[in-house]
Amino acid sequence: MTTDLLSRKADFPGMVTADGKPWHYLDTAATSQKPQAVVDAMSRALGRDYATVHRGVYGRSAEMTLGYEAARRRVAGFVGGQEDELVFTRGATEAINLVAATWGAANLNPGDRILLSVLEHHSNIVPWQMLRERTGVEIDVCPLTEDGRIDIDAARQIVDKRHKLLALSHVSNVLGSRLDVAAAADLAHSVGAKLLLDGCQAVPRLTVDVAALGCDFYVFSAHKLYGPTGIGALWAKRELLQAMPPYQGGGSMIDRVTFEKTTWADAPQRFEAGTPAITEAIAFAAAVDYVEAIGMDAAERHEMALTAKAREELGRINSLHLFGPEDSAGIVSFTMDGIHPHDLGTILDEENVAIRAGHHCAQPLMEHLGVPATARASFGIYSDEDDIAALIRGIERTIRIFG
Amino acid sequence: MTTDLLSRKADFPGMVTADGKPWHYLDTAATSQKPQAVVDAMSRALGRDYATVHRGVYGRSAEMTLGYEAARRRVAGFVGGQEDELVFTRGATEAINLVAATWGAANLNPGDRILLSVLEHHSNIVPWQMLRERTGVEIDVCPLTEDGRIDIDAARQIVDKRHKLLALSHVSNVLGSRLDVAAAADLAHSVGAKLLLDGCQAVPRLTVDVAALGCDFYVFSAHKLYGPTGIGALWAKRELLQAMPPYQGGGSMIDRVTFEKTTWADAPQRFEAGTPAITEAIAFAAAVDYVEAIGMDAAERHEMALTAKAREELGRINSLHLFGPEDSAGIVSFTMDGIHPHDLGTILDEENVAIRAGHHCAQPLMEHLGVPATARASFGIYSDEDDIAALIRGIERTIRIFG
Repeated sequence: MTTDLLSRKADFPGMVTADGKPWHYLDTAATSQKPQAVVDAMSRALGRDYATVHRGVYGRSAEMTLGYEAARRRVAGFVGGQEDELVFTRGATEAINLVAATWGAANLNPGDRILLSVLEHHSNIVPWQMLRERTGVEIDVCPLTEDGRIDIDAARQIVDKRHKLLALSHVSNVLGSRLDVAAAADLAHSVGAKLLLDGCQAVPRLTVDVAALGCDFYVFSAHKLYGPTGIGALWAKRELLQAMPPYQGGGSMIDRVTFEKTTWADAPQRFEAGTPAITEAIAFAAAVDYVEAIGMDAAERHEMALTAKAREELGRINSLHLFGPEDSAGIVSFTMDGIHPHDLGTILDEENVAIRAGHHCAQPLMEHLGVPATARASFGIYSDEDDIAALIRGIERTIRIFG
Repeated sequence: MTTDLLSRKADFPGMVTADGKPWHYLDTAATSQKPQAVVDAMSRALGRDYATVHRGVYGRSAEMTLGYEAARRRVAGFVGGQEDELVFTRGATEAINLVAATWGAANLNPGDRILLSVLEHHSNIVPWQMLRERTGVEIDVCPLTEDGRIDIDAARQIVDKRHKLLALSHVSNVLGSRLDVAAAADLAHSVGAKLLLDGCQAVPRLTVDVAALGCDFYVFSAHKLYGPTGIGALWAKRELLQAMPPYQGGGSMIDRVTFEKTTWADAPQRFEAGTPAITEAIAFAAAVDYVEAIGMDAAERHEMALTAKAREELGRINSLHLFGPEDSAGIVSFTMDGIHPHDLGTILDEENVAIRAGHHCAQPLMEHLGVPATARASFGIYSDEDDIAALIRGIERTIRIFG
């Protein structure tokens, strides 16, 4: 079932240990490994192609500008958006902070409300709390269903005309549960609210089309999508983006500067102050090229199959407790009786199996689950059944050690 | 005089044209070319060494964390600071915005004043104008001396107890003029104000020691220091940094998150929300290694010698007008009678000479100089007298074309 992707492991220079053994990397939800094509794109951009963008009167700078703007078009198109709707940010975290500090500060007033959910990543909680401090907006928290989905029926009981924004994870970084986006969008728009989706875990795992989803803001990072660190993206509906005040001031985001008054460039430039992450944008586009050549449908089928297999095998271990829904999109969280997730992670590391153990930047969800931490195995397009087998072997060994 | 550095050109893969000819790159003040050592550090970090930082329980993540924190120590040490005083930012622009939005918003009140200068880059103007909108602080503008230095004698006539901040360029990105930092620091501190220095053009050209300079904030970017795009640094005095509220909310910058109340991590982590620019930090440190192996004293002597030579040769051309002081640190701006800087730049490009033409993100300075734009040639550690000779030949050809 996963044979069409098995050969991909060789594309990723990070997928071997320092002594040349296979590395069973199951921490893709934290960050993905990079294909050689991305490493090479970065090297070329930093090396023989390097120049600044938007300003140079010489040919190589003009070419780099074309490359940078082509990257914007490529990344926007990957999520079904247009180039003038896509802002390159430092990452998904900055993208959410940008929306909070610009659209939020300009449009939200004391008494207005924002709906988040119990399973949000800190990056989709803290910026809204900071906005609450600044503007007096209130935050509501949508509960989860029994199997760890955002409970839209419950949201319908909470949301009313005072709500101006629903900000929700498209795919949970802990449970892999998917949002019913159509229902969330209908709910948001029925009261005149906007819908922001944190797409960090969705974009590497599902076909994303912002128009079909019906959201207003969509944020994601490159480093979880097989791309470089230091860059992410905010997609926003054109009319929202054009109306938003700037976030950071500096070069490239201005129209005209005098000490008395400065006027702004159009979006998306208005939101990209200073020299951008030029080579990162180009490597980001190379990552999109790489995954599109595989096809997101194939990537989704691959991860769904691995997740089902992993849940089945993990489910056979008596002392192990699985979280999240059966159809989790590539992410499996669990705990074990009498073994702390950190201890499990440490012993697995000896077997060249890398999982994550901790609160996964989702402390409110941990509190809801009633655990201080979970162990989490997460898959990517390079993952295969060998990785699951190594994980199970490692868990069994850990049980023997702690037994 | 410059022989000790002549051999460096071969270290930079970008210093040849697409068809293998020498490229006379004189736009280092916009962005510097990268040595192969930096490209290689980036490739290793994105490839065989890649993992996330601060969170993984497996060995490679622990190693990456050590590498990331070693990079912080290395970059901080390069400017004479300590690791807990250095925040990695998206760039110098973000660093200034961060200070304005955190220290500025927390400490400045209506009626308080900030002193900037006529020659500031937009990145050291617009963030303070945005703070003015938000807090009602006022901005004063220090004039320049006849030869294009920030006029500290004039500043003494302006600054009083209402001033809480002086934010000034250490080296002008248009004129290459150096600030008398000791005098600026004395003036700032005599009225209880802080001194922020925009070090973007200084750090690649001079030995910088924040303690000896006596400043309170120092910002710079990696991409102008032979390092990658997508990363820069804010150095701030420890007690200032520890007292500053957070800038962006998200993962890694928190102590404890609940929906009711979130508490913050200590500085510098408090200011690094989300997955950081991991590979960029490591490549940034590789750039510091590279320039420190050369020595900043040697780099400064090299650029001063080239600047003197360039000013001498350009000064012989009758129709050419030089700006800035004689001791400019590696940056020479000029205009020509009857030839627009953009036209000059375009013709020079045909000769494989890359200069910058425009307002250099310093429109108020252009207005002060009475020109819409200047041509600017700027040097780096890879520049040599051949580049100057090619520039002069190209200018002479342009004069013939327009003559």
